[in-house]
Amino acid sequence: MERTKFRNELAQQLRVDSIRAADAAGSGHPTSSMSAADLMAALLDGHLRLDFDRPETPANDHLVFSKGHASPLLYSCFKAAGAIDDAELLTFREFGSRLEGHPTPALPWVDVATGSLGQGLPFGVGLALTAARLDELNNRVWVLCGDSEMAEGSIWEAFEHAAFYRLDNIVALVDVNRLGQTGETMHGWDLGAYSARARAIGWHTVEVDGHDPERIEAALTEAEATSGRPTAVVARTSKGKGASEVENLPGKHGKPLQDPATAIEELGGVRDLRVKVSAPDTVGGSRTFSPTDGETARFEVGNSVATRKAYGQGLRALGSRRGDVVAMDGEVSNSTHSEQFREAYPERYFEMYIAEQQMLATAVGMQARGWVPFASTFAAFLSRAYDFIRMASISRASLNLMGSHAGTAIGEDGPSQMALEDLAAMRAVHGSTVLYPCDANQTARLLEPMADREGICYLRASRGASPVIYGPDEEFPIGGSRTVREGDHVTLVGAGVTLHEAVEAADRLAEEGIRARVVDLYSIKPTDTETLRRAAEETEGLVTVEDHWPEGGLGDAVLAALADTGASAPVTKLAVTGMPGSGKPAELLSQVGIDSTAIARAARALVPESASR
Amino acid sequence: MERTKFRNELAQQLRVDSIRAADAAGSGHPTSSMSAADLMAALLDGHLRLDFDRPETPANDHLVFSKGHASPLLYSCFKAAGAIDDAELLTFREFGSRLEGHPTPALPWVDVATGSLGQGLPFGVGLALTAARLDELNNRVWVLCGDSEMAEGSIWEAFEHAAFYRLDNIVALVDVNRLGQTGETMHGWDLGAYSARARAIGWHTVEVDGHDPERIEAALTEAEATSGRPTAVVARTSKGKGASEVENLPGKHGKPLQDPATAIEELGGVRDLRVKVSAPDTVGGSRTFSPTDGETARFEVGNSVATRKAYGQGLRALGSRRGDVVAMDGEVSNSTHSEQFREAYPERYFEMYIAEQQMLATAVGMQARGWVPFASTFAAFLSRAYDFIRMASISRASLNLMGSHAGTAIGEDGPSQMALEDLAAMRAVHGSTVLYPCDANQTARLLEPMADREGICYLRASRGASPVIYGPDEEFPIGGSRTVREGDHVTLVGAGVTLHEAVEAADRLAEEGIRARVVDLYSIKPTDTETLRRAAEETEGLVTVEDHWPEGGLGDAVLAALADTGASAPVTKLAVTGMPGSGKPAELLSQVGIDSTAIARAARALVPESASR
Repeated sequence: MERTKFRNELAQQLRVDSIRAADAAGSGHPTSSMSAADLMAALLDGHLRLDFDRPETPANDHLVFSKGHASPLLYSCFKAAGAIDDAELLTFREFGSRLEGHPTPALPWVDVATGSLGQGLPFGVGLALTAARLDELNNRVWVLCGDSEMAEGSIWEAFEHAAFYRLDNIVALVDVNRLGQTGETMHGWDLGAYSARARAIGWHTVEVDGHDPERIEAALTEAEATSGRPTAVVARTSKGKGASEVENLPGKHGKPLQDPATAIEELGGVRDLRVKVSAPDTVGGSRTFSPTDGETARFEVGNSVATRKAYGQGLRALGSRRGDVVAMDGEVSNSTHSEQFREAYPERYFEMYIAEQQMLATAVGMQARGWVPFASTFAAFLSRAYDFIRMASISRASLNLMGSHAGTAIGEDGPSQMALEDLAAMRAVHGSTVLYPCDANQTARLLEPMADREGICYLRASRGASPVIYGPDEEFPIGGSRTVREGDHVTLVGAGVTLHEAVEAADRLAEEGIRARVVDLYSIKPTDTETLRRAAEETEGLVTVEDHWPEGGLGDAVLAALADTGASAPVTKLAVTGMPGSGKPAELLSQVGIDSTAIARAARALVPESASR
Repeated sequence: MERTKFRNELAQQLRVDSIRAADAAGSGHPTSSMSAADLMAALLDGHLRLDFDRPETPANDHLVFSKGHASPLLYSCFKAAGAIDDAELLTFREFGSRLEGHPTPALPWVDVATGSLGQGLPFGVGLALTAARLDELNNRVWVLCGDSEMAEGSIWEAFEHAAFYRLDNIVALVDVNRLGQTGETMHGWDLGAYSARARAIGWHTVEVDGHDPERIEAALTEAEATSGRPTAVVARTSKGKGASEVENLPGKHGKPLQDPATAIEELGGVRDLRVKVSAPDTVGGSRTFSPTDGETARFEVGNSVATRKAYGQGLRALGSRRGDVVAMDGEVSNSTHSEQFREAYPERYFEMYIAEQQMLATAVGMQARGWVPFASTFAAFLSRAYDFIRMASISRASLNLMGSHAGTAIGEDGPSQMALEDLAAMRAVHGSTVLYPCDANQTARLLEPMADREGICYLRASRGASPVIYGPDEEFPIGGSRTVREGDHVTLVGAGVTLHEAVEAADRLAEEGIRARVVDLYSIKPTDTETLRRAAEETEGLVTVEDHWPEGGLGDAVLAALADTGASAPVTKLAVTGMPGSGKPAELLSQVGIDSTAIARAARALVPESASR
């Protein structure tokens, strides 16, 4: 069959299969799939290089559906490529099917979960940066974008970074079908609006009729031939193309066709074409890393060191021993101290500028290729990327985040720079690990298990210096805790800056005859339930104290752990209750009620007069 | 004094005062302030229209420092305008001072808190849209942007919306001082990089030497004369301008000068100039609204209605009675049903497209002018704007958010569309209110107190229809709960979709002789502590059940409330434990362990055999 004719037929099959899949499911987005079918037919037939039988092949191209709701099209492509069969296609959206409503890595040809619009292109930039700078492969990343999602700022972060890093191995296929979910997009069919923006940023652009196979072929070839910068193929398409019931009509988003049989007939009926998707010429180097000898970050007990500084030293040390560790930062590397890694291993450090969403997306892309990313910024500003963190957990990503400058203890900079919700937000990420060390050795040691751990690990670090209380050879398992003072009257539970306040409170209470146990709950999630249970049983009650809002942080973690064990004891939760302003750290800790004075007061209230005699 | 000379002197004073303020504080960002001093001197002297004595004047211009860390410059401007005195200027960053490290509305001339980069321009667009479309005033919004923050995608959402809504009442002053916190920005002094992007989006742009008063004057005049589109003044400046210790040098970000005396001498010494900032020509119409008669959304008990649909009807009804209620949506108004408000009150509805950050920023801008915004999208996608929500609480904003399609109960669309962390995230916002109604009348009734409430209110709505169990005239106070089944063996606590599962479980348990009390905890925050305390005392234990991850949601809220009261009872927390895929709602609720079967099982385990006889 002549090429153009074959591609036309293939595109019709992709449309028909999209309609059939959504019909079988009783839901889904066939019309959003149909607009991009000609783009995908051309891509599969001669441009995409992907060995579907060996999805782990490093040199494979990546195909990312940033418009994840066009999943019927993606799965129809997988069927056309012979990766899944027709019976599986029709399990779309069924319970237990790997063909979920939006693509996830439950499928081996899907690198990243999409479905939150505006994320696929940033993830694609992460994959492309990995290929260009770390894996040094000649493969390509193809990203299908919708026009509606071009309104997301994260798309423009991706455009910026792709141009800045001169990624000529990424191609954005922008499916401009004009119609969003509720009506026309901001720019309708004004292709020039999109290409002007992309060109201003430094991309090469090609505008095409997205239903003309010749023009699409030329555009993809042009994209492949373009060097030194990324290419956007901006395609004018019709939503629901080819089916009169839905084509280019409003109100046809996200639902199966009412009369699929007629539409399938209009599209030429059901086909069973197979397209031979080329495998890459080479398998490509899969780098393997073995831990080697190297530095260890060690701090002397009694010195005063900020945990953010220990993070920088610890990360550099980890980087000396593990070649697969990479780092990135949101342009605050001199505050997070990730600059130590940058200076030692510039080829494994990536400046993400003040674009936290792209920073997360880059980390997701890198871990998809087996690298071990550590991404850092102020903890408060990780909240900018919360949707990306949420989606990363759906991608089953393993990556590490460090948030510095946590809590009111930062002092003078004021509340905009104080993370006070980060523990709650990060605990509520599926499969996450949440750590909050109080000293430099603990911080550096925790980086080691983080690098090996599955899921999203978050380490909360402090701005100010704090005393080194643990020796450099001590171990801090994730899920553990440290009892830094023994006592049987009352238990004080803190972490990070509040651990030191708790120790001070215990010293003061000791003078009054109250024996306070102090638990360093450096692993907020998972929580050391057993130690907390014993504290509930062996002392009169617990005081939890955290530099965080009262909701969802350390105190709630302790209550949840106690509820799990069935242990029962009075718990007084101290946390930040009023909006802080600026001031000295000690002034603020006192004002918001989490300093040693407040802790001692709460502890006294839990201990009966008689007990402390 | 001749104009140019005066402005030069004024600019030097602003620099000197910025140095003095940071020196007094021992921290802060004088060099980031000094680069923009000439821009501010020109703005204050003849362009800004702001009655400092009457900050509530509706027709006042708005001055937003998107680069909030240049607060020393802002406060020096306030001093030059006579709004604060020199003694107060030198309280910068002191405990208790309203001159915080980053600007907040603790100062009457600050509309919105800034300090998280990339937010001031979106907030400014919200203020400009309010002026143009709601208040219908001829004032202007001036936003000082830094070049580093141009890397934030949210800045480009703001650019897009300002152009789309043809806001010629906003001017962005982009202070391109080339140096970020750690090094050079992506684009250095390439003014064309910024103006090409802005022009591609539809802005008018002017590039200037940011230290040339004549050129600045011309640019501001040109901005004022431009109609039909917003203007960006892109200014080449030097960080630390005028002080040889710091000017245009790396490593001088965010710290006081080492030798302020020499710098002040270089800058011509301390001055005490006053600039007469013009008041607006008119006070401007401050609209006052009185509640009027209008519709009430009423649903018949026994019908089946989705709470998101009740939100749409309830909001339209509220809009009929309150002229100050405005609505906006992230291009999913047919899913959130905010389209009902849009259709009834198009002049009070604002399409934010798929740009959740700008949606939040618009709501913040509108409430700053006294409007009562309701912003809606899928609950999962509010996570995209979490940093904006965090900052809104620092702005002391009162606004209402509705997140639809919560939890695994959405079914086939899969996890990318399921909010499972929203309760944790929203509870951890200072001063927030978190509501999760289970029926249509409850949903509609809750919108009324939300509109009057201070702070950030979040209402979680469900996708699927659920039975109407409450009458249309019942009241649901915020902070309350409803006991929908009495019982003294065990208490089941649910909300939203899980309330109905709990009722079903109670019915099943009743057949076994177990009398289960069922509490509808529709107000997750604040929590009805008293009802929970009684349940703990009067029954054998509590089962909490939520369509949410286990961390930080309804269960943790119940545990925290019980800990507060000192009541002690076994609590079994049921929540979503594994990553869901696609499937029918009932299949997913069963899989993740939160359906009636799971609830009944957990309840049985809490009730001793003897109790239920």
